[in-house]
Amino acid sequence: MNEIKHLLDVDQLTKDDIEKVLETAKSFSEVLQRPIKKVPSLRGKTVVNLFYEPSTRTRISFEVAAKRLSADVLNFSVSTSSVEKGESLKDTALTLEAMGVDAVVVRHSASGVPWLLKRWLQASILNAGDGMHAHPTQALLDLFTMTERIGDLQGKTIAYVGDILHSRVARSGIKACGIMGMKVVAVAPPTLRPPAMPPVVEISNDFDSVIPDCDVIYMLRIQRERQKEGRFPSVEEYTRLYQLDMARLGRARPEVIVMHPGPMNRGIEIASEVADAPHSVITAQVAAGVALRMAVLFLLLGGSEGGERVA
Amino acid sequence: MNEIKHLLDVDQLTKDDIEKVLETAKSFSEVLQRPIKKVPSLRGKTVVNLFYEPSTRTRISFEVAAKRLSADVLNFSVSTSSVEKGESLKDTALTLEAMGVDAVVVRHSASGVPWLLKRWLQASILNAGDGMHAHPTQALLDLFTMTERIGDLQGKTIAYVGDILHSRVARSGIKACGIMGMKVVAVAPPTLRPPAMPPVVEISNDFDSVIPDCDVIYMLRIQRERQKEGRFPSVEEYTRLYQLDMARLGRARPEVIVMHPGPMNRGIEIASEVADAPHSVITAQVAAGVALRMAVLFLLLGGSEGGERVA
Amino acid sequence: MNEIKHLLDVDQLTKDDIEKVLETAKSFSEVLQRPIKKVPSLRGKTVVNLFYEPSTRTRISFEVAAKRLSADVLNFSVSTSSVEKGESLKDTALTLEAMGVDAVVVRHSASGVPWLLKRWLQASILNAGDGMHAHPTQALLDLFTMTERIGDLQGKTIAYVGDILHSRVARSGIKACGIMGMKVVAVAPPTLRPPAMPPVVEISNDFDSVIPDCDVIYMLRIQRERQKEGRFPSVEEYTRLYQLDMARLGRARPEVIVMHPGPMNRGIEIASEVADAPHSVITAQVAAGVALRMAVLFLLLGGSEGGERVA
Repeated sequence: MNEIKHLLDVDQLTKDDIEKVLETAKSFSEVLQRPIKKVPSLRGKTVVNLFYEPSTRTRISFEVAAKRLSADVLNFSVSTSSVEKGESLKDTALTLEAMGVDAVVVRHSASGVPWLLKRWLQASILNAGDGMHAHPTQALLDLFTMTERIGDLQGKTIAYVGDILHSRVARSGIKACGIMGMKVVAVAPPTLRPPAMPPVVEISNDFDSVIPDCDVIYMLRIQRERQKEGRFPSVEEYTRLYQLDMARLGRARPEVIVMHPGPMNRGIEIASEVADAPHSVITAQVAAGVALRMAVLFLLLGGSEGGERVA
Repeated sequence: MNEIKHLLDVDQLTKDDIEKVLETAKSFSEVLQRPIKKVPSLRGKTVVNLFYEPSTRTRISFEVAAKRLSADVLNFSVSTSSVEKGESLKDTALTLEAMGVDAVVVRHSASGVPWLLKRWLQASILNAGDGMHAHPTQALLDLFTMTERIGDLQGKTIAYVGDILHSRVARSGIKACGIMGMKVVAVAPPTLRPPAMPPVVEISNDFDSVIPDCDVIYMLRIQRERQKEGRFPSVEEYTRLYQLDMARLGRARPEVIVMHPGPMNRGIEIASEVADAPHSVITAQVAAGVALRMAVLFLLLGGSEGGERVA
Repeated sequence: MNEIKHLLDVDQLTKDDIEKVLETAKSFSEVLQRPIKKVPSLRGKTVVNLFYEPSTRTRISFEVAAKRLSADVLNFSVSTSSVEKGESLKDTALTLEAMGVDAVVVRHSASGVPWLLKRWLQASILNAGDGMHAHPTQALLDLFTMTERIGDLQGKTIAYVGDILHSRVARSGIKACGIMGMKVVAVAPPTLRPPAMPPVVEISNDFDSVIPDCDVIYMLRIQRERQKEGRFPSVEEYTRLYQLDMARLGRARPEVIVMHPGPMNRGIEIASEVADAPHSVITAQVAAGVALRMAVLFLLLGGSEGGERVA
């Protein structure tokens, strides 16, 4: 990882790289148990959150992570920005770089934007979600959460369930699970399934038959807009076939874990009781997000010298 | 106070508790006179401002207070949040807690929200205003301001004037003044008076007859919407009967103090000359707000060990 | 400068004052080259960004500058503020001061607002742009950028090109260049030219004839609204006469520098190739902005004792 400067998607990482990230996140998760949850590792560094899509959840997770590394954080969100004045993405990015930012955490509704920034800037680029394309820190925090609960991931089975087609969480997550040697099943109605999938992924539209084999069930958020687009007939129909409810959970292995990237639609893709059941690691995912993002910021910005600073 | 973890409303506090808070605020107000107005008391702690109603004034006061204690501050306001995506209050709160926040400062238009958060979270909850219900830090900063100007509050007389019915400032303030042994008069037109009041409160709709007895006159903000609701006939009528103008101030005791929670409608509930008169302690209230909120954050989050750190 | 408490416009400064500011900015620009781009000079000081007009660019520049001096920064922008509740500018300002802020960085659409704040407040006031009137930190960062590239400014020639009439950048910039002994040419269509100009300024509407004499060409942002107001006939016409394109740049001195305050309308007032040409110092202006604003904050808030702290 020491030579890696940007985090654009998980497929730039080897299994060894990912294990290094997860180990570093583990050590930061221990820092987060202390009364003073802060280390000086990135003091004097500046991280900018450049968010062209609203997402308080992800933005705050990166903000907390950067602040606990003692970095300065700037929030640059589209609604209050000079984007209104029609400035180009490139000029906005060059402006931020000229101010001396060390890392740009970027979210954009257009796929590929982080790659453009990488071409234009010297700063480290962290992809916090681009279009329907990639969301690598989510994939890595999900791996961290799984490892904490079920240990070695090699050979374990995970099902991603729901709107695979439009989900950058699934797209990066499936790749990451593949790198770690997991068996991946994509469960989705035919209309919410991408035309092409990595060959290692098994595809199913029968959630019930998949459940008994899963070590991890990963529920994706359904978006109501997809219904208007004709992607699924009705919420009732979708819920009947794809909601993870207590009955379905009862047919899973006792030690199965249930994940969701948030925010949840309780009562749609996931029953409220399931979200609060002991199998659910959904709030653990959020906690992992801070430690994981600390690890990524640390490795990208200060990794070479920083090993001791964490301790 | 050392065992108190949340600040939901003033009636959870004894007179001794309140005096402890005011003493602590006093020591912080001295810190705020120094060239370096900052202490390391809450370094490594994270405070989130969770504001479902816009209020720059209160939000910034808490933000300044937390930063001067060296805490990290996150601002989570409704307009930029995933509330738009329909996330429940509970999931938002659990998400923030999973990120490791130590205190949640919450403002919400629905009464009772801070009590819900207290049930769901481990973090300290500070009520920064819930519906028409409570606003305890405002009540405490008002007590601090009064004490600074008129000393011991026992037996002193305060009149709250205006829209008592819809005012969380009045509701918490009246309770707080009662705990401190003050005599409270509620001056309001019958349509802006709550159906029930604490028995110690005297009720009047004749402002002029109340003025000569007051040590403190507390003017409440009038909201124009109330007129549309038929709560008062016209701004002119309201102003004639309830505005504190120079003529009315002239009939008060010479040492009377005039208070207002801000933001003021100059020329409506308070004449502009009165707002700027020497009797007015309105900007002193704002200054007290920072010291008082430092005291509350300090006592809730770091109190047991922190006594020396203030000095 | 040690006795100067506010920065309202450049004409309050002598040439010596400006040189002091530029020297201080130079030393901060060296700090910004270090791995840890931060000094403790303003620790415990609070700077508020009071922005009544949206401007992420300038707001973030001040925010970075203040944070690199270790000050605490509060952002108070109109859209989320109690301005919605109708609080007066004066009460907002007094409220911020009562919270103990040391400096107010203010941007407002009305000319003169920073002078009003100066009358009302004890805090240092920094004008970050008022109406069409003044923008002194922009003028000073422009001087800094020029000095870095072309050395002593005495006797050098600068052309401001475009909408001089509505530009606070030009208005403060022209004054600043005058103080430094530069020769200033204002190039604008008659409808975008102010009725009165400082006597030292030469006026022209023939951009092509001015180009060969310039050491600096300063392109101003054109605003489309001006077209609706009948200030210029069409974008095509404006572009033909006043755009700095490669052909025009080719007729300038080889060592000419090209400036723009940003955000640019690429393809309107400036051709995209020119913006990216080696003559362009537009991103250098942004970088200078941080160092210059650090210098101004430092001199206004901590100057008397701070000389050594910078080093």
